[in-house]
Amino acid sequence: MNTTFMKHATTPSSHQPTVRLKSTFWKHYQELIAQEVLPYQWAVMSDETGVSMADDPGGNNEFGREKSHVLANLRIAAGLETGEHYGFPFQDTDLYKWIEAAAYIMRQREEPQLRRLVDSAIDLIAKAQCSDGYLDSFIQITAPTRRFARLRESHELYTMGHFIEAAVACHESTGYDKALNVAIRMADCIDRAFGPEDGKIHGSDGHPEIELALSRLYEVTGEQRYIDLARYLLDVRGQDPDFYDRQDKADGSKPFIPGMSQFPKSYYQAAEPIREQKHADGHAVRVGYLCTGLANVARLTGDAELADVARRLWDDIIRKRMYITGNVGSTRVGESFTYDYDLPNETMYGESCASVSMAFFARSMMNLQPAGLYGDIVEKELFNGALAGMSLDGKHFFYVNPLEADPQASAIDGNPDRHHVLCQRADWFGCACCPSNIARLIASVEDYIYTTKLSHNGDILTIYSSQFIANSASFEDGIAVDQRSDFPWNGHIEYSISVPAAATSVDFAIRIPQWSQSEASAVVSVDGSVIDATPGIDGFVHVSVASGATVHIECDVDMRVKLMEASTRVRHDIGKVAVMRGPIVFCAEEADNQGPLWLHRISVDSWAKMLETNKVDEHYDEDLLDGVEVISMPDQMRTLSSTEDDLYQPVSNDTDSETSFADSRLTLIPYYSWANRGRGRMQVWFDSNR
Amino acid sequence: MNTTFMKHATTPSSHQPTVRLKSTFWKHYQELIAQEVLPYQWAVMSDETGVSMADDPGGNNEFGREKSHVLANLRIAAGLETGEHYGFPFQDTDLYKWIEAAAYIMRQREEPQLRRLVDSAIDLIAKAQCSDGYLDSFIQITAPTRRFARLRESHELYTMGHFIEAAVACHESTGYDKALNVAIRMADCIDRAFGPEDGKIHGSDGHPEIELALSRLYEVTGEQRYIDLARYLLDVRGQDPDFYDRQDKADGSKPFIPGMSQFPKSYYQAAEPIREQKHADGHAVRVGYLCTGLANVARLTGDAELADVARRLWDDIIRKRMYITGNVGSTRVGESFTYDYDLPNETMYGESCASVSMAFFARSMMNLQPAGLYGDIVEKELFNGALAGMSLDGKHFFYVNPLEADPQASAIDGNPDRHHVLCQRADWFGCACCPSNIARLIASVEDYIYTTKLSHNGDILTIYSSQFIANSASFEDGIAVDQRSDFPWNGHIEYSISVPAAATSVDFAIRIPQWSQSEASAVVSVDGSVIDATPGIDGFVHVSVASGATVHIECDVDMRVKLMEASTRVRHDIGKVAVMRGPIVFCAEEADNQGPLWLHRISVDSWAKMLETNKVDEHYDEDLLDGVEVISMPDQMRTLSSTEDDLYQPVSNDTDSETSFADSRLTLIPYYSWANRGRGRMQVWFDSNR
Ligand SMILES: [Zn+2]
Ligand SMILES: [Zn+2]
Repeated sequence: MNTTFMKHATTPSSHQPTVRLKSTFWKHYQELIAQEVLPYQWAVMSDETGVSMADDPGGNNEFGREKSHVLANLRIAAGLETGEHYGFPFQDTDLYKWIEAAAYIMRQREEPQLRRLVDSAIDLIAKAQCSDGYLDSFIQITAPTRRFARLRESHELYTMGHFIEAAVACHESTGYDKALNVAIRMADCIDRAFGPEDGKIHGSDGHPEIELALSRLYEVTGEQRYIDLARYLLDVRGQDPDFYDRQDKADGSKPFIPGMSQFPKSYYQAAEPIREQKHADGHAVRVGYLCTGLANVARLTGDAELADVARRLWDDIIRKRMYITGNVGSTRVGESFTYDYDLPNETMYGESCASVSMAFFARSMMNLQPAGLYGDIVEKELFNGALAGMSLDGKHFFYVNPLEADPQASAIDGNPDRHHVLCQRADWFGCACCPSNIARLIASVEDYIYTTKLSHNGDILTIYSSQFIANSASFEDGIAVDQRSDFPWNGHIEYSISVPAAATSVDFAIRIPQWSQSEASAVVSVDGSVIDATPGIDGFVHVSVASGATVHIECDVDMRVKLMEASTRVRHDIGKVAVMRGPIVFCAEEADNQGPLWLHRISVDSWAKMLETNKVDEHYDEDLLDGVEVISMPDQMRTLSSTEDDLYQPVSNDTDSETSFADSRLTLIPYYSWANRGRGRMQVWFDSNR
Repeated sequence: MNTTFMKHATTPSSHQPTVRLKSTFWKHYQELIAQEVLPYQWAVMSDETGVSMADDPGGNNEFGREKSHVLANLRIAAGLETGEHYGFPFQDTDLYKWIEAAAYIMRQREEPQLRRLVDSAIDLIAKAQCSDGYLDSFIQITAPTRRFARLRESHELYTMGHFIEAAVACHESTGYDKALNVAIRMADCIDRAFGPEDGKIHGSDGHPEIELALSRLYEVTGEQRYIDLARYLLDVRGQDPDFYDRQDKADGSKPFIPGMSQFPKSYYQAAEPIREQKHADGHAVRVGYLCTGLANVARLTGDAELADVARRLWDDIIRKRMYITGNVGSTRVGESFTYDYDLPNETMYGESCASVSMAFFARSMMNLQPAGLYGDIVEKELFNGALAGMSLDGKHFFYVNPLEADPQASAIDGNPDRHHVLCQRADWFGCACCPSNIARLIASVEDYIYTTKLSHNGDILTIYSSQFIANSASFEDGIAVDQRSDFPWNGHIEYSISVPAAATSVDFAIRIPQWSQSEASAVVSVDGSVIDATPGIDGFVHVSVASGATVHIECDVDMRVKLMEASTRVRHDIGKVAVMRGPIVFCAEEADNQGPLWLHRISVDSWAKMLETNKVDEHYDEDLLDGVEVISMPDQMRTLSSTEDDLYQPVSNDTDSETSFADSRLTLIPYYSWANRGRGRMQVWFDSNR
């Protein structure tokens, strides 16, 4: 087995710099991952800590919810223990994503204890792996003769793909390649089983992920078979509409996940060939992973048609199917997208994993063709949709992320259509895909900051700075970028860019966030001189830094509190406003506010005046919720009807419509920080007088 | 078997007059029932016409949806045919409710052909009945040894109870008692099997209905055992929390309705003893039937505690859990109530049967203790919630009645949380409880008009006139009431009351509808002199008519178009208004209006002025929807965002908030008449500027 890998074999444009994180916000979160999240998750996965698991939000409670059993499953598969497999067929992936997160953390920090755990886990995984490279503890323990026999629901490629991702992260992070060798053996196993050749399987996993994993493995190994296989697995989807049904019939035995075959083909991303697909339909996480693989394969193979498909699906999601917080998935049924502009706030799904997958997709699109809007979505997920999935203590998680929550509705004697919406994060889940997914995203935020691109003639290196995350970064040839800020609380960002005389000159591109483009654009100065900060068509302001020069850039983005409205095509947000400041969506919680939250109405017409007269109070409260910006604004509050009042009554003909309102205030906190003070109502969208 | 029955044995206060319907509106509907609905339903039940059935809105598609097979099931049970039972365990009840409706129709009309069908059906039913009185074609055909073995789901008492109701209707209508003899044998069979005595079953049917049926049978037979049994079956509910589970275990065999045991005990009205029950929880139709039985038994036994329970549950529903249209049931899951003030408009259930059951409950409450508010709810159901369940052609039916509908959401590729909401009435349903339920309600509207009560000393007969439904009615002792109006389109009602010299004097009580009490009360004149029309605490205006007198009363109720608002405890209606005129709730349909309906906003503040200046146009259009009042009013319409616009954007700081609105009009039709012109969006609640 060849273990000398061509680094970045095909992709000079996506060189990753070495980034040392300096952002207070993200260093705090990575510290939390290292000190709390990863140890806690390890304890859960090794069944060393008792956990109380929530009902499966997807409605699948067929698998046990008493313990995780992830490590035990692998020990059983490795022959180190005897016993039954426990949990979902893809239970192994909880550990794989944990390893990936740990690998990222070890790039920033010495963590000897963590390294020992990772080592032991990889050793165990290597032991559990079959001699031909196959590894899936569920199949090995419960159905060894049924390999690849029910791909609709087996998650085998998904499971191995997650290990491949983890192995690539280990390779890039720790430098040792024990994991990568296991991953290569897995990929080779899959490559022998799947492909266009006769005798191979002409179908793919019901849950996409392997495509993105193989593209990453190709990037570190340069092995052409892997990218060819990735492209094949993308293209084979939806080509043979009866593939899964035929497999189930041929298998004949009982399903691995009962009820999975009831979903429409769009759920499995198998309703049509991907090159013909026009809408992001079906299971949202599957869409996100599929699209990430799609964009990677398009870039790595130069397949322009696939790139167009990626852009089309991107547009469909971003322009028509995403919540303001970056959450996606409008229904619990199939954890799925629904239709354009259908974005209910209470019955929605918004799985944490789906937000993580959207960050992946955005990064892959950025690598495919740099544009600021991809950075906008990464930022949206990092500060809102994805981050909301984890509690401030790092030990509780949301699977579902609603934009409006009410403990009474979610209660067992509430409204069953909202039972999947928790109002307090759970210790763990039977299907625990989300906790380690959030961990690996936060642990790798530094990978989302910069993208590089070398000009055709090789004499200009464009460095795209997509995120305002303070850091110091070393690029090739000694090019160094130092980024300083107190973002997201403060919008003043400084950059120092040093380009050695021997290096190529640099085109330094700063993303002007979409939220800082309307009304007041950002202010950018280079070495003290203000420049035109209107972003180019790519969404970036470009600053040239000659070889041998050091340039100091200051950038001030628009951090005013903004009232946001949705397209009037979104029925559920009609007449409503949400509050944003910078990239952060704010919400109101019962803990800070009077009465049922829905009684509050924001006066849009007096907003400008309220801002001018400083009636909108915003300040950083370091003692609240680990330190958050708090917004407090005047609003109006409807009178709460008495329970003695008629349920319906004629509207008073009193022409002074204000009589039923009282002056009030609305206090808002960042959406990501909600539900850290017990159960209570929460709301993102508020009625307005518009 | 005793077939000489004591008429109205115990209830002089609920004497029913002979009522000849004259209302144009209701005569038209009864004509439709006689000419279209009943023949159509007979053709469906005898499998003489092909029907396309909708997915089961309750999600239970385990039973076939190719045909009805009701009559065939009974022929098989009777030994006249061989074959399998087809359909739900309670399939027989479709026919029973049809017979009941036919019996009512035959009170108003000579229908020889209908009478022949009813005769043949009763003959068949008598043949299918077991020698001991038991009758349930499903059990007899598929599980004859499992009688009363799984009462949670078997619906056996429910099924026989529906026949008992039909038989009472036949007895009161046609005078012949063939059906009543069958019913008595059923009741005796149930009485032998259930009761407090050792060796009898100490439990009740998972679906209440038998209680109300037995109370009705008691009223026509005077047989004490029936009312005792009804009270026992009410009181035994929820006493033994493990009753159903123990039955299932003892039965051991497979369930009759798979999945039924997953519901909480509240679904079956078995969570707690009824005397302790505080909230209307669980399956809405079960609640309605249970409460009807409860109110009847309370009245017939003088059980004051049961009467209090009935009033408590009534209040809970009417004051906290009912839609403005009278629909009840806030969720598809378990076809159930949810919690106080939880009234979502899109994902709701609002089963037609639940509205019918609320009309029953209201009538029973009226009989228990007359009050105008019971007439309010009967009227609400008759003109809105219940009536909406049937198309104008009498051959299509809604199971679910939403207050907001969108074909895109309901489509197979729409939002699964709204898939149960049809936007066009279906030919029929696998579970076809609703079509014949609507038929029996409409066929018996004349039973909802008057309630009588004799004073303690017997010298004053109070006649409560609860509904403005034109008719001529003959009461005991030759007392005659003639009621004339063009209600619900016109609010002028005239009464002529003649009391023979030999009759008791009459206290004639006219219900002043709740919708005519605020702002402008009704105007009532007696023999040309205006009297004080402020209703008494009972909601009625009382006019004395002495023995030997004839009195002419004119009454004008408030038919102005009204904007209605909900209690601010109803989150889903915050800031919204609905439009009513008289008892009728109006809605907007896509067919009459521009753009997505949600873009329309009603200006509450200018409403009084709009009314004064005649800008609200209302007129009766005899060519539209079989003749309806149409309301057209100025409103404002938001601009529909372009699909090119950002999904979210800052609210413009433009202080003129009206710039994003255009003057528009909103055209409204009665809610009951929606979805008779193809699929399209429909909305009852509109955004307002309040
Ligand atoms: Zn997840
Ligand atoms: Zn029904």
